[in-house]
Amino acid sequence: MAEDKKKAVDKKELKAKIEKASARLGLLERQAREAKIPILITFDGFGAAGKGLQINRLIQAMDPRGFDVYTGGKVSEDDRMHPFLWQFATKTPADGRITIFDTSWYRHVQRDLFDGLTKEDELENAFEDIIAFERQLVDSGMVLIKLFLSITAKEQRKRFEKLDASKETAWLVTDNDWKRNAQYKKYKKINEDMIARTDTKDAPWVIIDANEKDAAALAIMKVVIERLEQALEAKAKGKEPGVYEAPIPPDKYKKGILSTVDLTKSLEREEYKEKLDLLQKKVEKLHSELYRQRIPVVLCFEGWDAAGKGGSIKRLTSHLDPRGYKVCPTPAPNSVEKAHHYLWRFWNNVPKDGHIAIYDRTWYGRVMVERIEGFCTEDDWRRAYDEINAFEAHLIHAGAVVLKFWVDIDKDEQERRFNDRMQNPAKQWKITDEDWRNREKWDKYEEAVNEMIDRTSTEAAPWVIVEGNSKYYARVKVLKTVVKALEAKIKEVEKAKKKHE
Amino acid sequence: MAEDKKKAVDKKELKAKIEKASARLGLLERQAREAKIPILITFDGFGAAGKGLQINRLIQAMDPRGFDVYTGGKVSEDDRMHPFLWQFATKTPADGRITIFDTSWYRHVQRDLFDGLTKEDELENAFEDIIAFERQLVDSGMVLIKLFLSITAKEQRKRFEKLDASKETAWLVTDNDWKRNAQYKKYKKINEDMIARTDTKDAPWVIIDANEKDAAALAIMKVVIERLEQALEAKAKGKEPGVYEAPIPPDKYKKGILSTVDLTKSLEREEYKEKLDLLQKKVEKLHSELYRQRIPVVLCFEGWDAAGKGGSIKRLTSHLDPRGYKVCPTPAPNSVEKAHHYLWRFWNNVPKDGHIAIYDRTWYGRVMVERIEGFCTEDDWRRAYDEINAFEAHLIHAGAVVLKFWVDIDKDEQERRFNDRMQNPAKQWKITDEDWRNREKWDKYEEAVNEMIDRTSTEAAPWVIVEGNSKYYARVKVLKTVVKALEAKIKEVEKAKKKHE
Repeated sequence: MAEDKKKAVDKKELKAKIEKASARLGLLERQAREAKIPILITFDGFGAAGKGLQINRLIQAMDPRGFDVYTGGKVSEDDRMHPFLWQFATKTPADGRITIFDTSWYRHVQRDLFDGLTKEDELENAFEDIIAFERQLVDSGMVLIKLFLSITAKEQRKRFEKLDASKETAWLVTDNDWKRNAQYKKYKKINEDMIARTDTKDAPWVIIDANEKDAAALAIMKVVIERLEQALEAKAKGKEPGVYEAPIPPDKYKKGILSTVDLTKSLEREEYKEKLDLLQKKVEKLHSELYRQRIPVVLCFEGWDAAGKGGSIKRLTSHLDPRGYKVCPTPAPNSVEKAHHYLWRFWNNVPKDGHIAIYDRTWYGRVMVERIEGFCTEDDWRRAYDEINAFEAHLIHAGAVVLKFWVDIDKDEQERRFNDRMQNPAKQWKITDEDWRNREKWDKYEEAVNEMIDRTSTEAAPWVIVEGNSKYYARVKVLKTVVKALEAKIKEVEKAKKKHE
Repeated sequence: MAEDKKKAVDKKELKAKIEKASARLGLLERQAREAKIPILITFDGFGAAGKGLQINRLIQAMDPRGFDVYTGGKVSEDDRMHPFLWQFATKTPADGRITIFDTSWYRHVQRDLFDGLTKEDELENAFEDIIAFERQLVDSGMVLIKLFLSITAKEQRKRFEKLDASKETAWLVTDNDWKRNAQYKKYKKINEDMIARTDTKDAPWVIIDANEKDAAALAIMKVVIERLEQALEAKAKGKEPGVYEAPIPPDKYKKGILSTVDLTKSLEREEYKEKLDLLQKKVEKLHSELYRQRIPVVLCFEGWDAAGKGGSIKRLTSHLDPRGYKVCPTPAPNSVEKAHHYLWRFWNNVPKDGHIAIYDRTWYGRVMVERIEGFCTEDDWRRAYDEINAFEAHLIHAGAVVLKFWVDIDKDEQERRFNDRMQNPAKQWKITDEDWRNREKWDKYEEAVNEMIDRTSTEAAPWVIVEGNSKYYARVKVLKTVVKALEAKIKEVEKAKKKHE
């Protein structure tokens, strides 16, 4: 009797604490919204640990207009045809919004690993990708709260049995759920390894004992409250500047790779026509081949104004099936894009397996125009080289071909083309005052491009400098490079398939 | 020999014409972009009529940064779990952009009908939905060009055989393709009926003889050129005002349904608590039931400022699984939303089968705030009643429950609540100067609401007026109404299923 009484008192106390935490949370959520802090909360854990219920408890305290809940446990065909982070990266919150994932990207190195959908030899890359991804989010000012809901094997069995007993909920328990319960120790080990590998300073794990629901609800609220308080305080204080291990000598990139480009390379019209025709037919054939082999392709075009990016893209795509490629222009970001992580809008155009995405200007804007015009802080663009390398590595880990073209011309050639555009009524729309203004910053851009190419040319995602004074030469070089890369990738994939057979 | 020569001359002439048309098209495309005209081009037709090839020919003349190509022939699981227009409505072009559908919504009343995926008894609704949808797009200033590519049975067979002969393309020809070729006459009849039903003044069909590829390419370019010229001319002239059959007496809606609402209805706290608890548990159970039955639910909340919409939504959702519902707030449209049809942003949140979408303010903004503040023309909001009815009808045809709540309070109650918010530090954020300004326009809003409820209350999507002076009463009424509607729908679905067995 005395124990019952104590239990009742405890329960009442717990309820009072939850109510208090709830009120506090509502206030902090509003403040975070006003401070435009994006918040991402992930719920992972054991099956039947009560993720849905706990999410519901948490959001009861919040304004239903401020958050979105996504189920990462459901994988659509579209999700499967993209790098595994894509499903989540495209849904990260805008400034001032909250996104909650019921099952996050960790599914890939947890449940999917146990179920055999993720192979052991993909694990290293996957962990690398996850750590880099989370770091980017946190560095951009996002609050990332990673919760792991833990229950015992016994409690799990009890909950499965209860669900199984009612015809309304029996469908929720799958054969794989039972298998994971039967092999609880093995599955627990996978989870422990995962947590150990990804418990970083930027994005620490919080393990919640979810055997008792009310206590778990309070524990979760407390975590969220603490993290929001910290974030609001940090935001009020202003961000600390990043520290760079090796300060760069101020003129290291004044002269660099661009000064070595041989812009006299050229091609005569006749030879051009002949080669172009041949290469376009080749690309057409390769396009259908990579569609069948489900290889995604990412082609990036950067270059001086009037260097001929558009013309090269046109020649590249003219024989392609329009259902299998997409040209993604990159104008100044709109208000929605501005409210997200700078890579978000590019994530949204990452190609499906078997498709080609051609980016006309790219995420490299971060280390060129945004750097030079001051659209981001020095911290932001200095950090971006690593971020971009990690982003491209993730695409490559998922099997993509990634090529980056810098279409180069010299200053005189640019002037000639600008003047030509000014004088030709059919081309006048192509030239704006901004182009002339950018031209005045040639040296600054040259320095930025030298640094960019140096820091982001990787073996798997190389920069290809295209000598562009001769348009014919440039177009053929682009096509040739694409053909070569696609042929190599297709060969590689076929070889890997044969090995598997 | 003479004939060969003639052929060669014809071919050369055709090529010259195509080049000329191509240049003209490039210019018009740019002008349309500058004039911010959205353009939608659909390609439908017989299998192997060369849609991909013709799209490619057409876009060669355009700036690759100005258009998007979507394949409507591929239906994802997500597409299947939405009304059939959803897949396309969410991809309609923004102002100044071009969207091309390789296979459009007509698939639903053409190929899917032949294949048995669309049932005969769904046809009437489908045609009605299509005609209303197209009319809305055109009325909003979109250029809609519907192309039907026709080839003979013989030509189709020849093309299938050619594709079939190469191992690289054989996978493109399916059993259903062969079946449609074998039953060419039957399939042709379906297409003819479809065209006859949907060849409207607003959105006429253009049938392209696609047996000869170059001639077809030229014919398509000519159509697009003509339509763009017309659109540019019309835009330069300015839009003609719409004509309304029955002019509305200026004071018809000054006094209307809102004056009859009994705002004295109320509920005591104890009774409220009891009923609330019961109803919330019921809704929770029904939610899981409708998930299993794959019933989509659309709940709309409109009402005076401070009427208690948020509070009602909170009580409605507090027991729901967060993975199965979404609250969609409707702040002022952002720049991307502004550049689209006004329904576009709501299309993007249309719930999947089995899910609930709760709209906190809705598309009815068009006939309230947009009407009163002059954010759209009188034409626009007068047209909107029919447009909204058609939009909701489409959701209902797809099996949705649609409920619309007007949460009503009187002017005194609003003032009390405003003052309460001003004085309560925890609630001050809820009240802005705009709220006070809106309050001054009470009579105008009342008139607009009276008209809105009168014109858009349909049997399948009724307005429910919620007497809101008593918050307790209002919340319970909302829950009760939802429970009743869900129970009725579930019963209906179960009955229909039994009939099918």
